[in-house]
Amino acid sequence: MPTPKSRANESSPPAEFGAKILDMARQLARFSETPDGLTCTYLSPAHKAAAAQLRDWMRAAGLTAQIDAVGNVVGRYSSAAPAAKTLIVASHYDTVVNAGCFDGRLGILTALAVAEHLADIGRPLPFHLDVIGFAEEEGVRFAAPYLGSSAIAGRFDAAVLQRSDKDGVRLGSLLQEQGVDRDAIARLARPPETLRGYLEVHIEQGPVLLDKNLPVGIVTAIAGSARFHVSVRGTAGHAGTVPMALRHDAATAAAEIVLAVERRCSEGPTLVGTVGQLAVPHGLINVIPGSCELSLDVRAADDTVRDGAIADIVAAAQSIAARRGITVEISAIGVHSAVPCSPAMQAALAQSVARTGIAPFHLASGAGHDAAMFGGLTEIGMLFVRCGNGGVSHSPLETVTAEDADAAARVLLDVLVNLT
Amino acid sequence: MPTPKSRANESSPPAEFGAKILDMARQLARFSETPDGLTCTYLSPAHKAAAAQLRDWMRAAGLTAQIDAVGNVVGRYSSAAPAAKTLIVASHYDTVVNAGCFDGRLGILTALAVAEHLADIGRPLPFHLDVIGFAEEEGVRFAAPYLGSSAIAGRFDAAVLQRSDKDGVRLGSLLQEQGVDRDAIARLARPPETLRGYLEVHIEQGPVLLDKNLPVGIVTAIAGSARFHVSVRGTAGHAGTVPMALRHDAATAAAEIVLAVERRCSEGPTLVGTVGQLAVPHGLINVIPGSCELSLDVRAADDTVRDGAIADIVAAAQSIAARRGITVEISAIGVHSAVPCSPAMQAALAQSVARTGIAPFHLASGAGHDAAMFGGLTEIGMLFVRCGNGGVSHSPLETVTAEDADAAARVLLDVLVNLT
Repeated sequence: MPTPKSRANESSPPAEFGAKILDMARQLARFSETPDGLTCTYLSPAHKAAAAQLRDWMRAAGLTAQIDAVGNVVGRYSSAAPAAKTLIVASHYDTVVNAGCFDGRLGILTALAVAEHLADIGRPLPFHLDVIGFAEEEGVRFAAPYLGSSAIAGRFDAAVLQRSDKDGVRLGSLLQEQGVDRDAIARLARPPETLRGYLEVHIEQGPVLLDKNLPVGIVTAIAGSARFHVSVRGTAGHAGTVPMALRHDAATAAAEIVLAVERRCSEGPTLVGTVGQLAVPHGLINVIPGSCELSLDVRAADDTVRDGAIADIVAAAQSIAARRGITVEISAIGVHSAVPCSPAMQAALAQSVARTGIAPFHLASGAGHDAAMFGGLTEIGMLFVRCGNGGVSHSPLETVTAEDADAAARVLLDVLVNLT
Repeated sequence: MPTPKSRANESSPPAEFGAKILDMARQLARFSETPDGLTCTYLSPAHKAAAAQLRDWMRAAGLTAQIDAVGNVVGRYSSAAPAAKTLIVASHYDTVVNAGCFDGRLGILTALAVAEHLADIGRPLPFHLDVIGFAEEEGVRFAAPYLGSSAIAGRFDAAVLQRSDKDGVRLGSLLQEQGVDRDAIARLARPPETLRGYLEVHIEQGPVLLDKNLPVGIVTAIAGSARFHVSVRGTAGHAGTVPMALRHDAATAAAEIVLAVERRCSEGPTLVGTVGQLAVPHGLINVIPGSCELSLDVRAADDTVRDGAIADIVAAAQSIAARRGITVEISAIGVHSAVPCSPAMQAALAQSVARTGIAPFHLASGAGHDAAMFGGLTEIGMLFVRCGNGGVSHSPLETVTAEDADAAARVLLDVLVNLT
């Protein structure tokens, strides 16, 4: 552990939870594939070094710890009762390219700091506490997100073994070199009946808590997302010679669709809609656009809310197309259902937040998280931590304060000692 | 000439004007830089072959003809009075890449067919009639549009001699190889006092005459254009985690600007506004756009109308920016004034259109034309010919019917024999 161990007791947790967590995050960020900034993708040398560091810290904290077949770092603070169920407190240690040092890691390090404190004070728990650093969540190297958590949840998709990284290295071959086959991965699955629940602390990756001036918030659900590609086809023409009334401009039609998405998705509290890609292919300054391509990403904590918005957006696009004499083709790229957090875990988190002296505030997660892999298998709960710098995420500008990390650790500690 | 000469008289012009013009256009289109389709850019072998063909046809038609220093093909049907002024009837024979075979060429070939008829019947004119095929108008090879007409008009910009084509060939060097220097180009300039006027027949390149069901129309003015680059800067963010109300999305702001351009430019009869380029650079499906780049092209037959629209669009963009908490930077790329056609030439054309049995219809030209080079120097007039296929231009799909070409030739003939 980077800082000297402190001896404290449960009613007065160490004041340096926050400082210790931030210090570990900074140390872990030194393992990077790039000399500047932080990039740590699946099974790179930096990734393996980060895993070894996490394992060593877990062992130093008094946990039994090892790196499993797919690279998850699993540390256990055992219950006195060998047949007890297991509460998993986890997040991921892989990163996007040019990442911040808190996305994923904050959750592992908060759990680690709290587990160390429990070990220090010898506090028994009625469940095994497994602190897990998942090896892969971002999906950067093999476009296979949730690789680590899906293995533990028993939801590993063997099809991703056929995927290759940008250098042509197949995931299946890479694992095989390390003696890992499908069976080894399958053996990582935790039978649901052995689980007490799943908790995850994660940086919010958005500006809501910042806007509410709150250090932490209780997640209600991990939003479902639906993604589409939208192709608008109009009629190209000379920018000088075709009167406005005779045009079938693909870009003005696309502009109307972009605003229809924004308007409709502003009508629900957890609903968001984004056109992230927008382009007139080979556009010329003096040519009326004959085509325009855009992407559409719609999310909500409730699938019926999301699907209602999508239906309205599709209808709006068709009506825009009919009025303008153009065509719109909308093709689905991927649809993922929302995963609600369990009411009991939300209530437990809310009570602990309140006991920590913070107003309990509930919010949905618009981003996907490892927790989603455990939806339907066990009770899941998530605690968001305030994200600084306007809520910027997947960027070196991502920040968390020591005070907020401290608050998150105190809430997690309170949950753990009160959960039965 | 491709078809056997017909002997006719002025009161009964040959029925095959239209067929002859279309046949010549098709023959001229065989000189192309590409095996399929038509591409004929400045001083390419295809371009030189097209010039030689035009010169030969002019000579066969009874004109004195030569190719001048910059490649213009100049054919003269002389007046009996050597000191008479000169009426230029012209257009260009260069093309865009993958062009139609009428843009520019229709005007040269219509003038040629009419001049041939005048020579055949020995009809004297009170002015020298110069039929000119300009070597360069599209500006494809050296980004130097109006190269041919600017030389004849005495408005050649010597700075373009420094420009190079995509292979690094400098225009000045290319001309020098052929023994052409600045002085030779300067000598091509016609003193304004020697000019009776300038007429140009051109395909409309738009759908207005098609929409009005008219074969020809009288041009009121060549619209002025103003071009801008618009940079929208917002705040990038995670598409799932930033609530709609907290976003500063550059693409939704750009969409509003696109629609503001469309709305404002629909408020005037000759006013048009186009966003031809529109892109979120490096857009990702799950990232709120932090920037969006667009182009803006605004044209009108009247500069004050155009400038009023631009001022309103700029104000609308600034108000959108302020409301959304983003920034918009608008930089001018180029501004060109409108060139009005002379009232006398418009009246002469209108009378001839009416005498040809067609309802005179006036329209502005949204595209630039060689005629603009002669604005302010002499009286200019333009006759547009209906463009088929919905008005498509700069495309192999560009069409003109033999009947419409015939109507244009009859109108031109009527103007020439009535102009004093």
